[in-house]
Amino acid sequence: MHSTDSPSADAGTQAVIDHLAARQQPIVAWLEDFLRIPSVSADPAFAPGMDTARRFLLERLRAIGLHEVQLLDGGGEPAVYGEWNGAPGKPTVMVYGHYDVQPADPLALWRTPPFEPATVDGRLYARGSSDVKGSTTIALETIAAFLAVRGGCPVNIKVFLEGEEETGSPSLRHLVERHRALLRADAVLSADGGRASAEAPTINTGARGNAQLEVRLRSAHKDLHSGRYGGGVRNALHEMARLIASLHHADGGVAVEGFHAGAQPPTPQQRADTAAFPYDEAAFFADVGGSDHGEPGYSARERITLRPALDVNGLWGGYTGEGGKTIVPCEAGAKLTARVVAGQDPGAVIRAVLRHLQAHCPPGCTLETVALHEGSPASTLAPAHPLVRAAEAVLERESGRRPIHVRLGASVPVTALFKETLGIDTLMFGFNLPDEDVHAPNEFFRLASIQQGARAWTLLLAELASYPPARFHGH
Amino acid sequence: MHSTDSPSADAGTQAVIDHLAARQQPIVAWLEDFLRIPSVSADPAFAPGMDTARRFLLERLRAIGLHEVQLLDGGGEPAVYGEWNGAPGKPTVMVYGHYDVQPADPLALWRTPPFEPATVDGRLYARGSSDVKGSTTIALETIAAFLAVRGGCPVNIKVFLEGEEETGSPSLRHLVERHRALLRADAVLSADGGRASAEAPTINTGARGNAQLEVRLRSAHKDLHSGRYGGGVRNALHEMARLIASLHHADGGVAVEGFHAGAQPPTPQQRADTAAFPYDEAAFFADVGGSDHGEPGYSARERITLRPALDVNGLWGGYTGEGGKTIVPCEAGAKLTARVVAGQDPGAVIRAVLRHLQAHCPPGCTLETVALHEGSPASTLAPAHPLVRAAEAVLERESGRRPIHVRLGASVPVTALFKETLGIDTLMFGFNLPDEDVHAPNEFFRLASIQQGARAWTLLLAELASYPPARFHGH
Repeated sequence: MHSTDSPSADAGTQAVIDHLAARQQPIVAWLEDFLRIPSVSADPAFAPGMDTARRFLLERLRAIGLHEVQLLDGGGEPAVYGEWNGAPGKPTVMVYGHYDVQPADPLALWRTPPFEPATVDGRLYARGSSDVKGSTTIALETIAAFLAVRGGCPVNIKVFLEGEEETGSPSLRHLVERHRALLRADAVLSADGGRASAEAPTINTGARGNAQLEVRLRSAHKDLHSGRYGGGVRNALHEMARLIASLHHADGGVAVEGFHAGAQPPTPQQRADTAAFPYDEAAFFADVGGSDHGEPGYSARERITLRPALDVNGLWGGYTGEGGKTIVPCEAGAKLTARVVAGQDPGAVIRAVLRHLQAHCPPGCTLETVALHEGSPASTLAPAHPLVRAAEAVLERESGRRPIHVRLGASVPVTALFKETLGIDTLMFGFNLPDEDVHAPNEFFRLASIQQGARAWTLLLAELASYPPARFHGH
Repeated sequence: MHSTDSPSADAGTQAVIDHLAARQQPIVAWLEDFLRIPSVSADPAFAPGMDTARRFLLERLRAIGLHEVQLLDGGGEPAVYGEWNGAPGKPTVMVYGHYDVQPADPLALWRTPPFEPATVDGRLYARGSSDVKGSTTIALETIAAFLAVRGGCPVNIKVFLEGEEETGSPSLRHLVERHRALLRADAVLSADGGRASAEAPTINTGARGNAQLEVRLRSAHKDLHSGRYGGGVRNALHEMARLIASLHHADGGVAVEGFHAGAQPPTPQQRADTAAFPYDEAAFFADVGGSDHGEPGYSARERITLRPALDVNGLWGGYTGEGGKTIVPCEAGAKLTARVVAGQDPGAVIRAVLRHLQAHCPPGCTLETVALHEGSPASTLAPAHPLVRAAEAVLERESGRRPIHVRLGASVPVTALFKETLGIDTLMFGFNLPDEDVHAPNEFFRLASIQQGARAWTLLLAELASYPPARFHGH
């Protein structure tokens, strides 16, 4: 293990860092307990796991020494909350994380059970390890260490752990508005939204937004015998395939009218930052067996961070069991996600997709909207914001290199929501890495990231204390 | 109930018809017992149901008074066999049926459980009632009545009940070849392949053949996060949708090169027969909520009986459960069936489909063949064949109208197989009707068809006795 000494830490901060390094084993043990809880928010069958996760976190926040520890209800999955307000005159930082995880299926592809954490070669495998129980643990342990070692934090803290991040945060707006007074803060530090690179220091200055759509196409009242009707009638799967195929041009660009409306083109600085980012495009594709395909005129890295995208996440219809069934299926379903960039209204974008599908749905077939979630717009953090400046100072002193500004391709809806409802900006400061198979089988988190993250969070909280609260506003 | 007197029956035959009419209640009760047995051949989970169905039939064949009652094994699901050879010098007729049924899903759409027969308004609802346990029961009861009332049948009988019809009869060829001597006969009367119309008398003079294909497309090693990869890589569902959409032209015609190879164009007589057939095209579509779509230049009725067709029976990939999952799916699957007409080689047709899919599979994706079943070619019965002449005589005397020659859109693979392996022709003489939701939820069989069928089968067996065995060969 490398030295825990930091050139940028004063003696008090260094003591916190040393304390965190000494506690690596119990921190990992606690994270493993957290990962054993199957807190899948998308599937009602996992409601008990969601409840267990909340009780587990409430207990930990109390043990750390936070006050006002409670559940905040917004009508959906409650958030877990706790605060520490012992730094008068200093900024108040909301620490955001989420305790819900993605569904674990397809289960058959997991090498170890998704809710039985297993460590292999320094990698902790479990659903939610990288997204985002690992980084949430780093944030909580950093606060715990300040309180344990120094009796207080450099800034005021409001811990806010959401339970609906993986389902598009349907009740979060209502929840935050309802508890607006309690949640008042100067800025948000998010454990979600990880590091862009293991090599170069980076600062997340924004993320794509998103929106979701689920539709059903019907071509008949019932499934029909393919011998008696085949060649005579429309087949729901043929028509759905045609609709889905019509969404993209052959070259990979999105063919939906209005899909790109409002999208700010990448600036020269953004394209320069993207070029400076250490990125092995060949390895990016080879690692996952994927192939380069998308909107012409942009590099793959630009496409996944600076350009909107449209993906079908699930598609089904007809007989999908063992053997064959000679039917003309009457129904097909599809789930879609749009990723949007700065300047776009995610609701307008996803409604453009729906209009496209409706316009291309052939006569005699019906297209029903099962779900339409507007999600959240893209988020952007100004370069002069104290969150960016503080992170730059910490990462440059730690690494000796100037951090590169990057944007996330994934969406962190809360960032936009906190800006809109509480008027505050968010710095994404998670420590997961891009290859950790989030949302897929065999998700893992690197154990080495725990100490790297704990050092950086410790230094960042100390650094943020040097800015007056007013400096965080008005960007 | 209408009179059971027939203008065409002699006294002995009339006694058989009367006996069958008097036995309507026990015949229905036995059919209901048959329908309670879940003999789904496509799904290994139903193996016990398949076994129960065989034992149930063996018992019945013995009770009827057949000889050599036994299972015939060909390496797959055994066939049930029994014979009666007491009419020396008369033709030997193989009576074909099948005891297996289609899978019952989607279960949620059944109004009554699929394996609990329920009679409503003269319709007997159950999986397999129309396809083809109902018509199989008619055939068996006709033989039973001849043996009970007259002590013998007008022709020699070989009952052959298959267990793999719904899975494409994978072991049937081997089974028939293995038992070729036992199965020697002059013609086949099939309980499968039903009536084309409830109004007009019709004779089935052929059926489309078929072939099946199942493929998997892979675009990456694993499902990918749609935020981190969306817009950058190929999506298996987009590519599969594009492949499926490419199979047909927008006007409904099949776009696969080589798909129509060898297909004999409909003859003027076939088109005239099709036009003469009482067929309400608007009702055909309205009954099932389907819409007119297919190869240009042909009526819907021509398309489903005289032209080849290609249907996707199942399509799937990505996340299909509750809620959403923001992935770029790495895999997609599809099941397809081709229907072929006279002159076509079903293996060549389905391989043309596979070649099309492979040729259109984009770089970076792989297409794997999971299953390819060549099925069977279309079958055709010559107009001068005694089977046709005898059926014409029976139906014309019964109805007072000249029967219309029709062809089935569905496939009865055994017809081609019996021709090829045993050199004999098959008349499809089932009594199910086209609207009885075979292969779909709420399949039913009209109870009135039992007596109509039993009368016709009784008269037909008597009529066939008037032809010397040699007349059945050489067509």
